[in-house]
Amino acid sequence: MSHLPVAAAGTPGQMDKPLISRHLVDSDGSLAQVPSEAPKVGILGSGDFARSLATRLVGAGFSVVVGSRNPKRTAGLFPSSAQVTFQEEAVSSPEIIFVAMFREHYPSLCALREQLAGKILVDMSNPTERELHEHCQSNAEYLASLFPACPVVKAFNVISAWTMQHGPRDGNRQVAICSDQPEAKRAVSEMAHAMGFIPLDMGSLASAREIEAIPLRLLPGWKVPTLLALGLFVCFYAYNFTRDVLQPYVQEGKNRFYKLPVSVVNTTLPCVAYVLLSLVYLPGVLAAALQLQRGTKYQRFPDWLDHWLQHRKQIGLLSFFCAVLHALYSFCLPLRRSHRFDLVNLAVKQVLANKSHYWEEEEVWRMEIYLSLGVLALGVLSLLAVTSLPSIANSLSWREFSFVQSTLGFVALLLCTLHTLTYGWTRAFKESYYKFFLPPTFTLTLLLPCVIILAKGLFLLPCFSRRLAKIRRGWEKDRAVKFMPPTDQVLVEKTSHV
Amino acid sequence: MSHLPVAAAGTPGQMDKPLISRHLVDSDGSLAQVPSEAPKVGILGSGDFARSLATRLVGAGFSVVVGSRNPKRTAGLFPSSAQVTFQEEAVSSPEIIFVAMFREHYPSLCALREQLAGKILVDMSNPTERELHEHCQSNAEYLASLFPACPVVKAFNVISAWTMQHGPRDGNRQVAICSDQPEAKRAVSEMAHAMGFIPLDMGSLASAREIEAIPLRLLPGWKVPTLLALGLFVCFYAYNFTRDVLQPYVQEGKNRFYKLPVSVVNTTLPCVAYVLLSLVYLPGVLAAALQLQRGTKYQRFPDWLDHWLQHRKQIGLLSFFCAVLHALYSFCLPLRRSHRFDLVNLAVKQVLANKSHYWEEEEVWRMEIYLSLGVLALGVLSLLAVTSLPSIANSLSWREFSFVQSTLGFVALLLCTLHTLTYGWTRAFKESYYKFFLPPTFTLTLLLPCVIILAKGLFLLPCFSRRLAKIRRGWEKDRAVKFMPPTDQVLVEKTSHV
Amino acid sequence: MSHLPVAAAGTPGQMDKPLISRHLVDSDGSLAQVPSEAPKVGILGSGDFARSLATRLVGAGFSVVVGSRNPKRTAGLFPSSAQVTFQEEAVSSPEIIFVAMFREHYPSLCALREQLAGKILVDMSNPTERELHEHCQSNAEYLASLFPACPVVKAFNVISAWTMQHGPRDGNRQVAICSDQPEAKRAVSEMAHAMGFIPLDMGSLASAREIEAIPLRLLPGWKVPTLLALGLFVCFYAYNFTRDVLQPYVQEGKNRFYKLPVSVVNTTLPCVAYVLLSLVYLPGVLAAALQLQRGTKYQRFPDWLDHWLQHRKQIGLLSFFCAVLHALYSFCLPLRRSHRFDLVNLAVKQVLANKSHYWEEEEVWRMEIYLSLGVLALGVLSLLAVTSLPSIANSLSWREFSFVQSTLGFVALLLCTLHTLTYGWTRAFKESYYKFFLPPTFTLTLLLPCVIILAKGLFLLPCFSRRLAKIRRGWEKDRAVKFMPPTDQVLVEKTSHV
Repeated sequence: MSHLPVAAAGTPGQMDKPLISRHLVDSDGSLAQVPSEAPKVGILGSGDFARSLATRLVGAGFSVVVGSRNPKRTAGLFPSSAQVTFQEEAVSSPEIIFVAMFREHYPSLCALREQLAGKILVDMSNPTERELHEHCQSNAEYLASLFPACPVVKAFNVISAWTMQHGPRDGNRQVAICSDQPEAKRAVSEMAHAMGFIPLDMGSLASAREIEAIPLRLLPGWKVPTLLALGLFVCFYAYNFTRDVLQPYVQEGKNRFYKLPVSVVNTTLPCVAYVLLSLVYLPGVLAAALQLQRGTKYQRFPDWLDHWLQHRKQIGLLSFFCAVLHALYSFCLPLRRSHRFDLVNLAVKQVLANKSHYWEEEEVWRMEIYLSLGVLALGVLSLLAVTSLPSIANSLSWREFSFVQSTLGFVALLLCTLHTLTYGWTRAFKESYYKFFLPPTFTLTLLLPCVIILAKGLFLLPCFSRRLAKIRRGWEKDRAVKFMPPTDQVLVEKTSHV
Repeated sequence: MSHLPVAAAGTPGQMDKPLISRHLVDSDGSLAQVPSEAPKVGILGSGDFARSLATRLVGAGFSVVVGSRNPKRTAGLFPSSAQVTFQEEAVSSPEIIFVAMFREHYPSLCALREQLAGKILVDMSNPTERELHEHCQSNAEYLASLFPACPVVKAFNVISAWTMQHGPRDGNRQVAICSDQPEAKRAVSEMAHAMGFIPLDMGSLASAREIEAIPLRLLPGWKVPTLLALGLFVCFYAYNFTRDVLQPYVQEGKNRFYKLPVSVVNTTLPCVAYVLLSLVYLPGVLAAALQLQRGTKYQRFPDWLDHWLQHRKQIGLLSFFCAVLHALYSFCLPLRRSHRFDLVNLAVKQVLANKSHYWEEEEVWRMEIYLSLGVLALGVLSLLAVTSLPSIANSLSWREFSFVQSTLGFVALLLCTLHTLTYGWTRAFKESYYKFFLPPTFTLTLLLPCVIILAKGLFLLPCFSRRLAKIRRGWEKDRAVKFMPPTDQVLVEKTSHV
Repeated sequence: MSHLPVAAAGTPGQMDKPLISRHLVDSDGSLAQVPSEAPKVGILGSGDFARSLATRLVGAGFSVVVGSRNPKRTAGLFPSSAQVTFQEEAVSSPEIIFVAMFREHYPSLCALREQLAGKILVDMSNPTERELHEHCQSNAEYLASLFPACPVVKAFNVISAWTMQHGPRDGNRQVAICSDQPEAKRAVSEMAHAMGFIPLDMGSLASAREIEAIPLRLLPGWKVPTLLALGLFVCFYAYNFTRDVLQPYVQEGKNRFYKLPVSVVNTTLPCVAYVLLSLVYLPGVLAAALQLQRGTKYQRFPDWLDHWLQHRKQIGLLSFFCAVLHALYSFCLPLRRSHRFDLVNLAVKQVLANKSHYWEEEEVWRMEIYLSLGVLALGVLSLLAVTSLPSIANSLSWREFSFVQSTLGFVALLLCTLHTLTYGWTRAFKESYYKFFLPPTFTLTLLLPCVIILAKGLFLLPCFSRRLAKIRRGWEKDRAVKFMPPTDQVLVEKTSHV
């Protein structure tokens, strides 16, 4: 990324050497030399991350001084163009000092307090999960408290030693940076640029805790929704297995085990997708009911509801993923050998029965309608999925996002319900479909969505919708205070947000 | 997002209390206490948004003072840790004052002009649609004109009261901020960070008008293209219905109504997608023709052409959406019960006719070729759709974007045309395909794309291409001024941009 | 984007006129006028880009002065509201001067050095490919060296003259900006905002070289991977053609040429996708082997391996693209007329042979399993593709990105291998499948992935995995230095990164 010539060639011990000038070679030689100095930076620490950092800094054209308690032993570990010396000497000339040490060693630096005064300290440390919960103060804030005379910047901790050494490749080039001193933040941001990273301003040092938690997280918002989806899949798979494979085997002695890899999976996936989609819209209905009952929006929701509301996006995306897999499996159905054999056997049967025209009008209509509804539902769901991409969501105003997620989402739920109902047709009322006395799977999945659709319809009744709109504009049931009605048009839209 | 401890515990009336210190608890207690103050912010206004803002600010660790004309009545509405007092008192100590009022009440603040001098005023108001068009000046610029001694920052208006109170969840965390004073902008940006939002620098206060328009817009660029697509769909659906369902019913007494949900939709969608795609490339051809005729690029295009050029992206994405639906519907065809019945009946017919080998070489070739071309066209279209995602488009240079959208787009149009031509094969020349004297649908859609392809070919002829290239580099027909040919290689590429 | 009223109405020659005041019309007239001046900017140069720039600046409400060596001749080229005058006069009053000239003409400006001192110079030039390689110094750095007393800002070069004139439409609105003076950068960023662009801070002037290279690049990272994919496609297509079409024709006289557009393509695509996917994971295995052999991670990889590691993302996305096309082609198979004829002929054959039940249990199982595995593999691959979108990758921590790309990616490779193995079933061991003595295609593709899976398994053995983990934490074989084991949990995860 950075193409600065590596000019610094200091070797350990050259402390009295002046700052090295970087002579930029002019193509034609006709111009005066540009006197420029390789900016000098200090590193405190000699671990793996310190070494990777030194390698990268040297590669980006900086003059690097490493401070160590045992420079002789450490020197060989660092690139030869980096100076390695005692800590006291290392911090004397650079204006920016990288602290590549563990939190527990910070107090050992207190002896350098005087030399460090006024210099920018860059905290790059990562706490372990345990440390993060143990300490109330982030590592960077702790460092700032030890060196009140130094501007402290939290940066580069989101970068692995590997990426630090080799430079950013594919994936994330962003470096979260925060500090209470804008000038110090700016200086470190410029360095991040020069090293090939993209600085991301995260505000004041109070954000350090958030930044330090980044490298520890592993898709935290996805854990519960994924387990939920897997659980639903296992349950529905077992149920469908019992109905579609076990029952024919036990009661009719038919071998249907070949249905396990495709057919049973394909009757399970839509159930999971449909239930998950209804779980996206259920918490909004519950929240509205709660607000109606309480008569205010200024009371906190119970924690479980709050968490649920916050994970709707993940649940919705998993629902979409299952719906896409369902579509792919469905398109695979006519590719199967079993499909071919069934067709041929059916044709042979017709010939033997001497039937020249075979046609069931109702069955034809059922399938045409539910296939069409299924495709439309998938189309609308894909719009929802696309608008939840960060770059698209960020380009939408809040009103647009709410329109797509709330209105289009409800349309998707309606289409899925119609898809399920036409798929079921009249089967729910025929005894032959209750195998082992188990109702057809689709009847089980219809419960939740129908409740949601009914509730949404109920909230549209004037008595409820007016009260809800009032509550959401700030009105409270048990207040004597006159409510000042906002003329702000945007607030009216919010009614459909939850 | 923000995990700052809520330290401020002021109650209404404590105006003489000094700024509250925030004692950060040290994990081991060995370190000196860090004297830190919860930053104090003021809020003018007592509506819904002011309350949500106060809740959020208190939650983010700020000390909040609310200024009201009737503090006693208002106090109960705000979180207990926020001070509620008279406006004059509220604005005295904080450096940042949030103005959570409607534009028409701004003049009422003029009495505070002296106390407010030098303080940062944050305008959070949203005009209604009517107000936006009525006033030439944005709300923030109006506020700035009333308080010339105050740095005014426009911010947070894109956040709904709901999001303000509960913190950003999924979707958009960005807060558009603008101001003429960089330091004021920086201070408010840091606050937005602390509140869990991502500040987005929108430049000087002149952008306030743009920012105030954001919450009012509802996908403005999509309205006309969507209506266009729907209109085309209705027209083509009616046409196909007449040819495929009505004609067999009227003239042959055959019941083909089962084709309505899937088959007719699936012959309609490719027509819509194809016409929309050609409408993406038509305005570019018209613009080039206009430039050729005028002999200059420095004359404005007529408004309709300009609007058309600006909506190409939306039209293209709708075309892609229809193409995807067409593919999904096509893959559904062999799943239909009617397909199964047709196959079985065909097999029975063959047996009864005693034909042991049934094969039509031409028909086989026709289908293999047009299916293959269709898949390729869809593949290229999906590349176009992916590169129009904001995050991908932003990572492409202008030359790359132009290459993908212009060159690949034209390849997609060519592939679609070949797909249509091979689908049609020789049917356009057979009388039996002119039902009710209506030509096959595909012949109707071929007109526009063929004109475009011909025009593009024409523009490649040296006489036109040279002139066009000259015009696009700044040459004008009726100028005496010598044209300085740019050696800039990039400009040459532009020829294919429109 | 910007809705500033165009207030400047200066005509050429009005040099003595004072700065024009911009009177913002107050909606109600009750307020005092806001004295505001249209900011004045200078442009040096009279080429196409200078004209487009002037048009845009005037449209954005700026007062524009153009400096020309022959103002009389040039004046007619610019919008009438822009002043055109001699260079010396043009640069006298504005604080920001746009240099819209070619690099070779920069020295001609040296005469203006005194008037320009302290003013912000904006370098907008683009070098040609040849110039970029010839000069060690970027154009902007060269300009800065000529005018050491001026803050130089590199900006707007990524914008085409077309976009500059007409304003940003769809696509990229970002303008990369860099400078050594933050205040100058800020001022130009604000101007970019006002002109409707989104400024992108690229750090210090040393980044100018990178910025100047942007408009010249044409998807550089995609060239080799695309050629690789095309090469693989051609080879495998020829191989499959020989086996599936040529052999039946030569040895059995059967006409299978209708298979060319769909069937042969569909047996070729999965091979390409599979080989490309294995090429994504091969370099990581090689890198690990190299590190194990060398006993250190601080030695650079050979260049070819380094390039390969850097192009894994592109290779992976091409693999995904081929896999999607493979799925689409597969879903097209039952739509083909040849499929219908085959089915009917099979049915007729069964009837003539008087077989009432036709079923091959093994064949049924083979297909059900490999179809199911194929769908799952495509699902996992699509997750990988989605997480490589810039906006998603940027929202993932490094640990999350590594988990998805490394762990999920390996799962995808495993699923693809199982898909291939079940597709092959026992065919690799039957002589009848060796047409022209050529082994079935799938056996060829299995080699690389199996090697990778074996190597990955090998590296999981304690003897190797421990050593690898040590090496990746900074340990080196031939060092006497005691290794300080990092307790940093994150570093442990890195083992699976390469």
